[in-house]
Amino acid sequence: MSVTTDVAGTVRALRAQVAELHGELTRWRLVAWTAGNVSARVPGRDLMVIKPSGVSYDELCAEAMVVCDLDGRLVEGAHAPSSDTAAHAYVYRHLPQVGGVVHTHSTYATAWAARREPIPCVLTMVADEFGGEVPVGPFALIGDDSIGRGIVETLRASRSRAVLMANHGPFTVGPDPRAAVKAAVLLEDVARTVHIARQGGSPVPIASEHVDALFDRYQNVYGQPTRPISRSDA
Amino acid sequence: MSVTTDVAGTVRALRAQVAELHGELTRWRLVAWTAGNVSARVPGRDLMVIKPSGVSYDELCAEAMVVCDLDGRLVEGAHAPSSDTAAHAYVYRHLPQVGGVVHTHSTYATAWAARREPIPCVLTMVADEFGGEVPVGPFALIGDDSIGRGIVETLRASRSRAVLMANHGPFTVGPDPRAAVKAAVLLEDVARTVHIARQGGSPVPIASEHVDALFDRYQNVYGQPTRPISRSDA
Amino acid sequence: MSVTTDVAGTVRALRAQVAELHGELTRWRLVAWTAGNVSARVPGRDLMVIKPSGVSYDELCAEAMVVCDLDGRLVEGAHAPSSDTAAHAYVYRHLPQVGGVVHTHSTYATAWAARREPIPCVLTMVADEFGGEVPVGPFALIGDDSIGRGIVETLRASRSRAVLMANHGPFTVGPDPRAAVKAAVLLEDVARTVHIARQGGSPVPIASEHVDALFDRYQNVYGQPTRPISRSDA
Amino acid sequence: MSVTTDVAGTVRALRAQVAELHGELTRWRLVAWTAGNVSARVPGRDLMVIKPSGVSYDELCAEAMVVCDLDGRLVEGAHAPSSDTAAHAYVYRHLPQVGGVVHTHSTYATAWAARREPIPCVLTMVADEFGGEVPVGPFALIGDDSIGRGIVETLRASRSRAVLMANHGPFTVGPDPRAAVKAAVLLEDVARTVHIARQGGSPVPIASEHVDALFDRYQNVYGQPTRPISRSDA
Repeated sequence: MSVTTDVAGTVRALRAQVAELHGELTRWRLVAWTAGNVSARVPGRDLMVIKPSGVSYDELCAEAMVVCDLDGRLVEGAHAPSSDTAAHAYVYRHLPQVGGVVHTHSTYATAWAARREPIPCVLTMVADEFGGEVPVGPFALIGDDSIGRGIVETLRASRSRAVLMANHGPFTVGPDPRAAVKAAVLLEDVARTVHIARQGGSPVPIASEHVDALFDRYQNVYGQPTRPISRSDA
Repeated sequence: MSVTTDVAGTVRALRAQVAELHGELTRWRLVAWTAGNVSARVPGRDLMVIKPSGVSYDELCAEAMVVCDLDGRLVEGAHAPSSDTAAHAYVYRHLPQVGGVVHTHSTYATAWAARREPIPCVLTMVADEFGGEVPVGPFALIGDDSIGRGIVETLRASRSRAVLMANHGPFTVGPDPRAAVKAAVLLEDVARTVHIARQGGSPVPIASEHVDALFDRYQNVYGQPTRPISRSDA
Repeated sequence: MSVTTDVAGTVRALRAQVAELHGELTRWRLVAWTAGNVSARVPGRDLMVIKPSGVSYDELCAEAMVVCDLDGRLVEGAHAPSSDTAAHAYVYRHLPQVGGVVHTHSTYATAWAARREPIPCVLTMVADEFGGEVPVGPFALIGDDSIGRGIVETLRASRSRAVLMANHGPFTVGPDPRAAVKAAVLLEDVARTVHIARQGGSPVPIASEHVDALFDRYQNVYGQPTRPISRSDA
Repeated sequence: MSVTTDVAGTVRALRAQVAELHGELTRWRLVAWTAGNVSARVPGRDLMVIKPSGVSYDELCAEAMVVCDLDGRLVEGAHAPSSDTAAHAYVYRHLPQVGGVVHTHSTYATAWAARREPIPCVLTMVADEFGGEVPVGPFALIGDDSIGRGIVETLRASRSRAVLMANHGPFTVGPDPRAAVKAAVLLEDVARTVHIARQGGSPVPIASEHVDALFDRYQNVYGQPTRPISRSDA
């Protein structure tokens, strides 16, 4: 009984946090219309909190969020879950360290995805946050586990928190939903900056030992003590 | 009498909705100054609600909207109707399933229009919303039915909800005005993303069977049960 | 005495209008920091109202505006006039139909100016508002009449309301300050759209007879009954 | 005692100013998430006021700012100082005329930095504010004095207020923190405009004697009486 009460409180807090984090997607101009979603794992439970489908961002209050199990089935909520719920659920099932997932169609990240080209590590911010180039995932149709599987396999082969799904758009993960949103914001920022850098000529790569040094420092010193997510699930 | 009363209520509601939808045009940065307009068909009547000409977006309240017949003549309202009224009216006369029309000069869509080049289907979002490449309509001068005819002929030859009128800008349609505004927002989003993708190299096309699968699913599953508009008027 | 009172009222109204129009420069993102200014001629007087120098846009209330004579000397106001006052004053002295002048360093217009390249007329909006390509003025240093002379000579040789001063930025004019601000907003919009169009290939030019038809219609029908400004001063 | 009181008042005022100036970084879209920082020297003291590490911009009130000595050690404040504190401190130790330092990863300036390419002086605004091309500093890892030394050496060899640190991003300085923020805003503005100008062809350089004339006038006439900063520390 007290456990159930605890979970209810956790879910309530996560609903509020996930709703508020959708505001960051619009604030940083990562989404057009309703084309983006944030989810959070309910810690210790096979549950997740996610955006409902097709609801305007202006109406995304805590109450509108829905709770699903990790097969993507609706457990609690008045709306149908996001059409991307299956992909989020697959990530939570297969990457236990992930506590938050974000999907957008942010412009510059999606432009790299349309060419199926990784974002090269030519900025210290790319090294800091993504530990090297941002990888591309496979082309996958919505409707089964293809997208989720593509995300997980790509993240496992990299230390990046972000994957560019081919012809589709980026997914980012983090130990909690706020970290996943931060990764989505910084991903679009570096996707844009590197694109523009390359439009004007050839960006200079950062030597791989410097990439390692930057990534290690940022993950361990700059307030992010967790180990890289994609490697921690081997 | 009760019919008239019903229409008055419908018109009042549509005035409010059309006024509010102009706010979406500025919110998503689709218009400069007053260069864009939204209209709605009055269901079951040969009437439409449309933006007045040359009124600042800050003043676009429900009361400022005007009602025209489907020949573009003013029926009700204190202002002259938009200078694009003839084009909207032509669309309503010839595409009975269309309930809303939007015209903008949004930057990236208009850039494709200036080259008279369709937007290729290299993103899942293009397949979802437009069912394939976004087509180009003819160059047409304002002042007669040329623009309306160009829109209708181009939409009939495609399953797209958007047409890029040559050297001019995009028109989008939908079963209701909100859907037409959504199409305008997503059109600019994909016009921008595909442009940027191509600036950096060659986007990978999506196979046509995948385009069909995505379009069918999105139109039939993702909260949009209506059949494709441009084909339903044959 | 009553004349003086009338002028005081006119000046008071123009101060308020000019202050408010600076808000349009930031709203449409035409200026960085304080790098842009609007002025208005005081009708029937050799006076103008203009932005003070180096004052933050947040502080640009009606009271902060200054009044100068048409040699650019301060007549009324607590601040020094804009460092571009001499150029505005020269325009008013030599183009009597001009009632408002705007100067910005808006990004895309200034990029064309850096290449000293006119903006080609490949959009109906360019034909409507500018009547053809937007011309480039000479390189001129600040400090004497060089900038003003360059603006006036370039506008006289064109029917455009805008001139791109080489390596510097755009100036726009209008029969009143609001029309000059509208021209500045639409100039940046078409400068951006045509730039992007050309990045992706070759925009298709509009035939000159169509340019003429569009310009004539827009100037005479679409709520702008005044004759072209730059030609009216021959 | 009264001296201490005076310093306390100065620090309090600087905390408020530095907090407020971070609002300019977001207003002018120079930072993504928390990736930017402003600092101010405490005049006459070996102290500086700087942004805390990893705090959201929404929470950057005066109280959240921290005070460090010029070796970057925390003197007063509830949070750890910015991870860039060592670089700011190095600048204050070696450039006594500098009263404010700003670091961002603003998109266009960082794109030039990724190519290690200076921004050429093809706009009057570049000549006015930076006195010539904006120089590139060395690639330097965070963690010791490398970044600070790179900034100082590059600024000393130029009359620019801005340096583009290779693969990293810009640092700007000024006699006070507001001037450093202004330089950061104008730097991004010219980085963007010159990038776009060059995408469309070849910008025309400004003759060096004109660059000198513009810089001298702007620094001495346009409300900025202080001598160039980077030269004043020889």
